[in-house]
Amino acid sequence: MTDVRGLSYREAGVDLDAADRTKEGLRDLVESTRDANTLSEMGLFGGLYAVPPEFANPVLVSSADGVGTKLKIAFRSGRHDTVGQDLVNHCVNDILVQGARPLFFLDYLATGDLDEAVVKEVVGGVAVACRENGCALLGGETAQMPDFYRANEYDLAGFIVGVVERDRILDGSGVMAGDTLIGMPSSGLHTNGYTLARRIVFDVLGLDVDDVFPEQDGSVADVLLTVHSSYLALLGPLLGEGIIKGLAHITGGGIPGNLPRTLGPAVGATIDLDSWTVPETFRLLAEAGRVEPDEMFRVFNMGIGMIAVVAPEFADSIVDRLNAAGTAGWVLGSVRSEPGISLV
Amino acid sequence: MTDVRGLSYREAGVDLDAADRTKEGLRDLVESTRDANTLSEMGLFGGLYAVPPEFANPVLVSSADGVGTKLKIAFRSGRHDTVGQDLVNHCVNDILVQGARPLFFLDYLATGDLDEAVVKEVVGGVAVACRENGCALLGGETAQMPDFYRANEYDLAGFIVGVVERDRILDGSGVMAGDTLIGMPSSGLHTNGYTLARRIVFDVLGLDVDDVFPEQDGSVADVLLTVHSSYLALLGPLLGEGIIKGLAHITGGGIPGNLPRTLGPAVGATIDLDSWTVPETFRLLAEAGRVEPDEMFRVFNMGIGMIAVVAPEFADSIVDRLNAAGTAGWVLGSVRSEPGISLV
Repeated sequence: MTDVRGLSYREAGVDLDAADRTKEGLRDLVESTRDANTLSEMGLFGGLYAVPPEFANPVLVSSADGVGTKLKIAFRSGRHDTVGQDLVNHCVNDILVQGARPLFFLDYLATGDLDEAVVKEVVGGVAVACRENGCALLGGETAQMPDFYRANEYDLAGFIVGVVERDRILDGSGVMAGDTLIGMPSSGLHTNGYTLARRIVFDVLGLDVDDVFPEQDGSVADVLLTVHSSYLALLGPLLGEGIIKGLAHITGGGIPGNLPRTLGPAVGATIDLDSWTVPETFRLLAEAGRVEPDEMFRVFNMGIGMIAVVAPEFADSIVDRLNAAGTAGWVLGSVRSEPGISLV
Repeated sequence: MTDVRGLSYREAGVDLDAADRTKEGLRDLVESTRDANTLSEMGLFGGLYAVPPEFANPVLVSSADGVGTKLKIAFRSGRHDTVGQDLVNHCVNDILVQGARPLFFLDYLATGDLDEAVVKEVVGGVAVACRENGCALLGGETAQMPDFYRANEYDLAGFIVGVVERDRILDGSGVMAGDTLIGMPSSGLHTNGYTLARRIVFDVLGLDVDDVFPEQDGSVADVLLTVHSSYLALLGPLLGEGIIKGLAHITGGGIPGNLPRTLGPAVGATIDLDSWTVPETFRLLAEAGRVEPDEMFRVFNMGIGMIAVVAPEFADSIVDRLNAAGTAGWVLGSVRSEPGISLV
């Protein structure tokens, strides 16, 4: 028998002491997101959150998501403080479209080897966006998984729980032909299409993260790490007034993949391509990658992060209010009786 | 300029059609976990779940976790139907120790390339355990992340939300010196210590997944993939009676790492090592890896999956009831006034 030196977990690749130190280093970040309904301290098995008592028939709305390969831009540029914001904002939007406001968030961060500083940057981004969206960072898991992830790489997923009064759930049931579609701008690629975008920018164009992004002011990292917008602050007040019939968060699948989820099977929509200017980033990707227009619209948001469905009589005042709040908002098209989405 | 063929998302490594097909293939699994409070159909942006109306002051208890490198055993053996059960049961136990019963669960499954059959096996395991624990599989994310994961590998994380009546939260506040500790058996390694266990079994002993596990009936895969036990069915009725003061789920960190979270800083515990027989699997790992006893107890559960803290006058009847329910339960030691955990 071979002589075997005594093994330890640390030698095998998992350092429990480092894990404890890292967790301790996150305490202030987590505590900064507490609110009146947060009942637990960090470090318990599960996090405790009281259902806000002001709801008569509270319905929980929950969503899970990841950051996808946008993370590769973070790895390549060494900037880890924004991907957590992408994750939280994405999740906030996903429950906002059902009328919910966020209560709490949990993250899952998996690494090969645990770099305390990187973990703190990543979770710091999560905490920033949690505070911005009025959402408690209630817990999370930081996993050390040797042999899974490449050196200096990690995966990041998140999970949100929000609440909506039962009779205020946005389920698109009031949507009808003749309703107006209002578009709101995305800040960039948000969190979708990065596998194709990376291929074009890095492989076809031969750029690296510190190079200037063609025809733009910032670097490739600046443009591709732009934080996914949250539409909560903008749309929260309008939801309270009950004048929004439906919302579509434009994520993977683009407008054709996401708007039908809001409209339901009975109606369709016509989108006027002249109603907005597709941002330069998407034009550049299409041109450099020779990507077909249909494919571009299916993979990317093309400059539209959120679409609201409203009765036509409210459309102008809503656009005015969005513009007054500092965000462009414009009439994008309308709902029609024929199912399907036409981009004309 | 190099001639560039038109690029598509699929050629870059992400197949949206396959993703849609895979999602559709999961519909029956997800539907099988619905309950009366599940308000959403699959495929919405977020899942909807009504707060059960029978709670006067409902507190949500939430936890995030992963399966860790136990997944490597699934990859190596091609058995993907149990890791989802590990994940759900782990999460159920993590909220059970705060007195909560599960409401709903969401999973995050990240792959390099999407293998429909594997995704279905993995999510099938999640659904099986959700049904067993009376928990709705409310949503999830299946991410295609080329260049992240090795071929035929994936990562799997999960998020659970449960509920407890506010005055029934288990927070260890009634725990005092003289209380009795009751141990309940683990089914195996559960979901912790796999990085060290794999090192010993595969590298030191030179075994593969189909070899017989030394001194046991099953194969290495059988032993190392044994499903993490859920203690909900066993402990749920006892929690309703209010005779349990605290529970500790023995996960990463072992007894010394987890029991103090339940006891709080004011008291400690003495554990009698003669009160149970450490299962053969752990003995074999210790011997083959020459792992120090302290390290073994810090990395592995050593045969104890859950510890309950009860007043001494209830101990015998609780042990009797656990035994009558078909699970071993035994007095493991007691709470003492001096902080710290002693294994004697």
